[in-house]
Amino acid sequence: MTAHKPGAASVALQMTDTHPLPRSEDCNPEAPYQAFGCSIFPSSMAPVAKQVSAALQMEEMGDTSRPLLFIQLNQLLSTPAGLEWRETARWIKFEEKVEDGGERWSAPHIPVLPLHSLFQLRTCLQEGKMLLDLEAPTFKEIIDKVLSGQPEETELQPELRERLADLLLRQPRHQPTKSLLWLIHELILSPCRGKAKSWSEPGAQLSKTPLKEQLRNQFKKKVPPGAEVAHVVVGEVEFLEKPFTAFIRLRQGVGLGSLAEVALPSRFLFILLGPRTKVKAYHEVGRAMATLLMDELFQRVAQQAEHREDLVAGMEAFLDELTVLPPRKWDPSTRIPPPSCLPSPYRRTTVHPPDWQSHGNGDMAAAGDRTGLGDLCPREELERTGRLFGGLLQDIRRKAPWYGSDFTDALHPQCLSAVLYIYLATVTNAITFGGMLGDATANMQGVLESFLGTAFAGSIFCLFSGQPLTILSSTGPVLVFERLLFSFSQDHSLDYLEFRLWIGLWVAFFGVVLVATEASHLVQYFTRFTEEGFCALISLIFIYDSLKKMLSLADAFPINWQYRLDNVTFYSCVCNLSIPGHSSARNDTLTPLPLAHQQPPAVPAGLSRTQCLGQGGHLLGTSCQYVPDVTLVSFLLFGGTFLSCTVLKHFRSSRYFPVGVRKLVSDFAVILAILTSCTVDTALGLETPKLLVPSELKPTNPARGWIIFPFGANPWWVCLVSAVPAVLVTILIFMDQQITAIILNRREYKLQKGAGFHLDLLCVSLLMAITSATGLPWYVSTTVISLAHMESLRKESASSAPGEYPKFLGIREQRLTGLAVFTLTGVSIFMAPILKYIPMPVLYGVFLHMGVEALNSIQLTDRVRLLLMPAKHQPDLAYLRHVPLRRVHLFTIIQLLCLALLWVLKSTVAAIIFPVMLLALVGIRKGLERIFSLHDLSWLDSLLPESTRKEAKRGQPREQEEESNGEEVGDVLGTTLFCSCPWCFFGVGAELGPS
Amino acid sequence: MTAHKPGAASVALQMTDTHPLPRSEDCNPEAPYQAFGCSIFPSSMAPVAKQVSAALQMEEMGDTSRPLLFIQLNQLLSTPAGLEWRETARWIKFEEKVEDGGERWSAPHIPVLPLHSLFQLRTCLQEGKMLLDLEAPTFKEIIDKVLSGQPEETELQPELRERLADLLLRQPRHQPTKSLLWLIHELILSPCRGKAKSWSEPGAQLSKTPLKEQLRNQFKKKVPPGAEVAHVVVGEVEFLEKPFTAFIRLRQGVGLGSLAEVALPSRFLFILLGPRTKVKAYHEVGRAMATLLMDELFQRVAQQAEHREDLVAGMEAFLDELTVLPPRKWDPSTRIPPPSCLPSPYRRTTVHPPDWQSHGNGDMAAAGDRTGLGDLCPREELERTGRLFGGLLQDIRRKAPWYGSDFTDALHPQCLSAVLYIYLATVTNAITFGGMLGDATANMQGVLESFLGTAFAGSIFCLFSGQPLTILSSTGPVLVFERLLFSFSQDHSLDYLEFRLWIGLWVAFFGVVLVATEASHLVQYFTRFTEEGFCALISLIFIYDSLKKMLSLADAFPINWQYRLDNVTFYSCVCNLSIPGHSSARNDTLTPLPLAHQQPPAVPAGLSRTQCLGQGGHLLGTSCQYVPDVTLVSFLLFGGTFLSCTVLKHFRSSRYFPVGVRKLVSDFAVILAILTSCTVDTALGLETPKLLVPSELKPTNPARGWIIFPFGANPWWVCLVSAVPAVLVTILIFMDQQITAIILNRREYKLQKGAGFHLDLLCVSLLMAITSATGLPWYVSTTVISLAHMESLRKESASSAPGEYPKFLGIREQRLTGLAVFTLTGVSIFMAPILKYIPMPVLYGVFLHMGVEALNSIQLTDRVRLLLMPAKHQPDLAYLRHVPLRRVHLFTIIQLLCLALLWVLKSTVAAIIFPVMLLALVGIRKGLERIFSLHDLSWLDSLLPESTRKEAKRGQPREQEEESNGEEVGDVLGTTLFCSCPWCFFGVGAELGPS
Repeated sequence: MTAHKPGAASVALQMTDTHPLPRSEDCNPEAPYQAFGCSIFPSSMAPVAKQVSAALQMEEMGDTSRPLLFIQLNQLLSTPAGLEWRETARWIKFEEKVEDGGERWSAPHIPVLPLHSLFQLRTCLQEGKMLLDLEAPTFKEIIDKVLSGQPEETELQPELRERLADLLLRQPRHQPTKSLLWLIHELILSPCRGKAKSWSEPGAQLSKTPLKEQLRNQFKKKVPPGAEVAHVVVGEVEFLEKPFTAFIRLRQGVGLGSLAEVALPSRFLFILLGPRTKVKAYHEVGRAMATLLMDELFQRVAQQAEHREDLVAGMEAFLDELTVLPPRKWDPSTRIPPPSCLPSPYRRTTVHPPDWQSHGNGDMAAAGDRTGLGDLCPREELERTGRLFGGLLQDIRRKAPWYGSDFTDALHPQCLSAVLYIYLATVTNAITFGGMLGDATANMQGVLESFLGTAFAGSIFCLFSGQPLTILSSTGPVLVFERLLFSFSQDHSLDYLEFRLWIGLWVAFFGVVLVATEASHLVQYFTRFTEEGFCALISLIFIYDSLKKMLSLADAFPINWQYRLDNVTFYSCVCNLSIPGHSSARNDTLTPLPLAHQQPPAVPAGLSRTQCLGQGGHLLGTSCQYVPDVTLVSFLLFGGTFLSCTVLKHFRSSRYFPVGVRKLVSDFAVILAILTSCTVDTALGLETPKLLVPSELKPTNPARGWIIFPFGANPWWVCLVSAVPAVLVTILIFMDQQITAIILNRREYKLQKGAGFHLDLLCVSLLMAITSATGLPWYVSTTVISLAHMESLRKESASSAPGEYPKFLGIREQRLTGLAVFTLTGVSIFMAPILKYIPMPVLYGVFLHMGVEALNSIQLTDRVRLLLMPAKHQPDLAYLRHVPLRRVHLFTIIQLLCLALLWVLKSTVAAIIFPVMLLALVGIRKGLERIFSLHDLSWLDSLLPESTRKEAKRGQPREQEEESNGEEVGDVLGTTLFCSCPWCFFGVGAELGPS
Repeated sequence: MTAHKPGAASVALQMTDTHPLPRSEDCNPEAPYQAFGCSIFPSSMAPVAKQVSAALQMEEMGDTSRPLLFIQLNQLLSTPAGLEWRETARWIKFEEKVEDGGERWSAPHIPVLPLHSLFQLRTCLQEGKMLLDLEAPTFKEIIDKVLSGQPEETELQPELRERLADLLLRQPRHQPTKSLLWLIHELILSPCRGKAKSWSEPGAQLSKTPLKEQLRNQFKKKVPPGAEVAHVVVGEVEFLEKPFTAFIRLRQGVGLGSLAEVALPSRFLFILLGPRTKVKAYHEVGRAMATLLMDELFQRVAQQAEHREDLVAGMEAFLDELTVLPPRKWDPSTRIPPPSCLPSPYRRTTVHPPDWQSHGNGDMAAAGDRTGLGDLCPREELERTGRLFGGLLQDIRRKAPWYGSDFTDALHPQCLSAVLYIYLATVTNAITFGGMLGDATANMQGVLESFLGTAFAGSIFCLFSGQPLTILSSTGPVLVFERLLFSFSQDHSLDYLEFRLWIGLWVAFFGVVLVATEASHLVQYFTRFTEEGFCALISLIFIYDSLKKMLSLADAFPINWQYRLDNVTFYSCVCNLSIPGHSSARNDTLTPLPLAHQQPPAVPAGLSRTQCLGQGGHLLGTSCQYVPDVTLVSFLLFGGTFLSCTVLKHFRSSRYFPVGVRKLVSDFAVILAILTSCTVDTALGLETPKLLVPSELKPTNPARGWIIFPFGANPWWVCLVSAVPAVLVTILIFMDQQITAIILNRREYKLQKGAGFHLDLLCVSLLMAITSATGLPWYVSTTVISLAHMESLRKESASSAPGEYPKFLGIREQRLTGLAVFTLTGVSIFMAPILKYIPMPVLYGVFLHMGVEALNSIQLTDRVRLLLMPAKHQPDLAYLRHVPLRRVHLFTIIQLLCLALLWVLKSTVAAIIFPVMLLALVGIRKGLERIFSLHDLSWLDSLLPESTRKEAKRGQPREQEEESNGEEVGDVLGTTLFCSCPWCFFGVGAELGPS
């Protein structure tokens, strides 16, 4: 085919390390440049491009550590002071342009070129001067060699030559990267119609040594270390009659004085000078050259080329990979922001099957991108050893080497914020559950037990567990179980704590058995379906509980909605010390009776409510039961805290202020919100309900001691019968613990130190035994707070090239934050005077925030949203491209039904079989395979181990996450927070993220 | 240069109406395809492409009403039931794709192609079969002719021919556009693993008549009337050994039965069948063909081409206009959403200087796009006639023909929403200003006068004015003046109303003089600088006032912040009828004194507050001065109303629910918010302050009558002296009125019926005389409410092609909504029982919303935001590309200083010279020309008339708005609401907007 003639088709590309492979002529799916080979017409193309690709493919197995290029475009502009070289654009990974009149750098963007200018550039390379591996120490010598060695046919007169050399050797004016401070400084110094201070006079000669400004340039920080400079120099001069072009490669990188913006060794030079044209043709050709040099593959071609033809062939290869946009449908002046997830530069030539090109923008490169059979193999941590305690031993072996670094890695200010945030969440949780446990068990376990237990169990777990990022807490299902157990004990006159001790011991025993038999292996059956069901339930409980607590405030501090301003004289409340009974009914009437008509009580008044009640009196009056303003202020604080948490958290992706400030604010968002709300509350001075922690160290119920004795109170057979409820508790603990563990240890969190499913379970089991023996609450991993913990510890790269997004590097895995949190929890008993300034509504606001964040982070939520969207407005999600919409909706609805069922179960007495229902979820998931095809399930859920094997056999490996697309990276559980490109989620953020 | 060889360069394009122009070979800036001519290398290109462009250019002067093409891609897929044709993509203005497994249409997007496939397509066109102007009534005949007339060199065996014909004649399966209801229906009917119901069995023959499903297809609504179909048919068949391609143009559009998705006449067919390849090469070539046919210019070439070479030349022209994206920097599977503002298809060949291509995405096509010297000429309405009342006569002449339609145009439900919204705003305004006027003038003008005056002046203005969309109201500056006038009258014992009457008469006289001398001509000096200063001030006053009013509520209903729950027995309030004085001090003490210790008052208690005060008693007690809960509920209502207004307003650009629902919600946002808040307030039942309108028709102050007599109370010379303050008032009225008028009549609102600056001023002046004589307040146009009025009346096109954004069509210009608003205001006196359910905090919330919306709509706000943003995060605004950042900041800071000065002036006694300060703004703007270059000012502001002339002379016409870019369309005053592409402003919205 004659599509676009490969420039010098007959010249074979010879590279230093070329090993041309014998390649069949037909379409090889592994061929990196299949477009050459896979045309629908018999190809008449020379094998040159194939050789380029083959060579590159071979070569990249070896070194890939070539220096990156920083490309600078200097353009000749006529200023009032004469001709002047000026930097007008630069490239590292993306293009940045000096705004025409703006004297500022544009935001980094993807270079968009007219096709025409690329063809002109090819002519330049084909016909212009070319010096490869030139050795010259200074720019002057380079210019001399370029101008002297003109081929004869392009006769360049000596006089012209001199003028050109003179022109080229002038000092260019760079556009330094300015900080905001500098700009303000300039604004103050030169408010009048002044020009920006230029670095040097136009017409000055190029300096041979780097200028001070070059060395001081802020931009240098953005250039990756070891980078070399490529100069593109274009301009119009009236004394030339036809264009003069030259492409020069230096043998070594040479510092060319003040030619470049930053003082780095230069490697490439492209010069294009020509007669005047009416349009900016030269500028565009210069941009084309720079874009070409920006391409990683062409960079390597350029670095290795030995002849002109090699370069042209490299350019052909580049041309053939271009994507085009039709005219008139799209404004070419639009600047496309850099994608948040850039495909790996080497990817195309290595693992990536080359079907993308034929997919165009129709079908995404799904099959290709979903590489990684890795996920089909079970996680290393969950592999069965087949020996007793084999998994546990492996866990210990895996984690032991990291133990030292688990403490040293915590030395970062971020950890401080995490400790404060999680500490407050833990304390609130301890108080909430402590209070509820106290209610449920007649204070056999109360708030103090909750504090001590949390502190003790949490610290132990943090010290010895496999995944110290986990936060232990009482959880809802456990609470339900305790409530049932206590009433059962009451009904059958059993000693509750002794009975509970035996159950705890049995659970610990079963737990150890599960560890020994490596039962954690089964967590592979917990697919996204199960995880999402569980996580959605827990998140909803968080949201529901915080709202319920707020509404219960309205009961504690009732508002008199019938209050009438005019009846102000009718409202009062007096202490009545007479015999209660005959007038207590009056106390409840709501109508504003003119009480003053009655005889005022003849008893000594002037008693406060507590004094009155203490003296056996009762309160009488229309305003006794109402508390003005407190409820409303509580709701304002609650809403305010929730909103400011959310807004401050998202401040990271705002446009305002430098990245550092934004990141700081976002990291400390919850603390800032709590502090602000506390300040407002204190300033208002109203008696809002405050956080009250116990301050004395003795059991809440005086009837019990600190140690529970196993025998004595109950008949002997109770210790055996306890095994029955213990089975239920074991299932509960196992499910609760392992689902949280698998959520926390997901691959996309990039944990370095590995998980320890068996070790975690062992810790929890042993803690069960100890807490049972001391009568403290039982503890298990809590999903929402643990996720918040990890989220507050995420590491991101300081992004390098302009336009590159910061990469998610992982989590600060260490044991110190958790340890600190639980130590502080224990110490809280002595911090009551400080903590009492924190209003409870503020903490409920934080809980709401945590619940909403966790709920927003699961794919189920996205799919529920889809239910409300007309198909055409739905976001371009990967699974929507591959699974019919009605199947997606059906899957969502089934999930919602399961969730509703779980919720109902949790709320009724059937809560005791709740853990069994969680297990049933796995069964339902298995049943889904009868309704959905494995293909659909592989997109909507992960596959069960057997199905995976089946699919793998059929040669259709499908992986869940599609990291390369950046579309689905975040819709796995909890990953809004952890995703490597968090801006994907804030529509507007796409342009804002890069620092 | 040999860039890409024009296919058949030697064949001249002959078109029916070609008039080849003699064109010089050099670079003509008007040449539409300059890329051909303006290469930097001497071009060896044949003149064919130039002729294409010349021909098209000539032709488009004539008819441009060619039928649009709907392009459908049918692809041969192998299904379990055998080969099947299936629709996989379609194009009108953008591409829509059937998702691979999704069985759904993708969102419309810009087609992105691999360059490679375009070159393959060119080979197809060059070498394949081509039948132009074929006459055949059915698809079968077309196929027969295509297959029979094979040229000899491509021997197609008869047997093969039959198989091909059989294959091509099979019924294709289309992807009908489904409504949400349909989907839900399907979901219920086929929840199990079923396939979507196919239209017909695979293998069935093509129907000759349109199928029922075709006729019923929802998609037909989206195809513009008169459209024709182009079929692109591609597929892989194993029995072919080399590709078979054909391009067919039918002489007339022929209905080809069930071939296309919708039953429309077909015009073009492109067939590409070939042997199997491993990649989707055919699909991509098919997409390339469709994209080519989608191009408006190529459509015309295809419709007129007489030879193969014409088509190839047309394709060359298309190729040369392509924009390319480099590989590896951008994921080609990304779908680019359609731009909100599409460049006109014919633009490039007509008015648009062709320098964009050389600009690439570096510099926007600034100079070119900023065409339209139109704005340099003064507006037609403001041209001087030079005759007395000449402008007024022209205004009347311009508006008279529209008078009838001013009433008929109002028949639209949207107007109902507008009337309700603006009515509530007007009534609130009338009450607010009425109350303040009453305070300022000892009720000489009170709330009732305010209602009557608003109703009267507003109705008259709506009936007779030049711009009936304007809403009249009392304004802040007038209020300040009245306050000063009243105290001056008091101090000098003058009769206030008589004095005011004379001032009013003088103002009316001056106003008429201004109208006679066409002084409105001067409003051309009110550039964006002045307008923004004024609009920002008015918006800030709105915001400030609503907040101040809310805080004053806290004074009216004080909260007892010291309330202690325990002291509930100490709070009471009793009526004391004894001689006031000795215990009134106690009334003020804040400490909760144990009042019950004192002897209870021996007077008859049981009196309510009013009864008590009415009987001369006073209230005694610690809770008398406090009102619980009301203030806090008010703040909750205020915040809730403001938030829900904002959220509901922006619901238009959300993804949820169909467009119709969203638009309805957005249109009625304010009403919905008010209704919701009122419901909540009523449900709570608390005594929040409500909207109270007067219900009796008599002057607020009994000392005055309805008619003010000009003589009697004051000395005779007062009527002459009044001329001095009248000058100030005249300036005030003139500035206030005309700035609002010029804001409302801005070009981008696309008003059809023209403005009437002179007529408006005359109306206002005459109303001044009447309101002075009747002692009613003075009225002038109010910016914020008028803008809200226009915003609630915006018309948008029901968008047609998928992906096209609805166009802003203009405003429903009519007199009826205004008239209804003011009539309702007048009638409100009788609607008090209904209106009393509306709490004032709700209305203040609406005011805050209006102020914030107006403030957000001015460019000044954007620039203030820029102050807080690091340069790299700033949005890509047009002026930032052209004006140095520090100049932009300087301009912003100067504007802020002016604003601060105006605010200070307004707040102090100097308010009297406020109108003069507004005039001074024009002077400051003039002075800015000494600090800023005209170039900078032309970007940041509009130019003053003289400067414009100066610039025009220098041949650098600069226009303010840059509609083609869609970037700045919205940052002119008030245009967030009116912009033709409102989604530009909601980052995320870009993908959501199209219906």
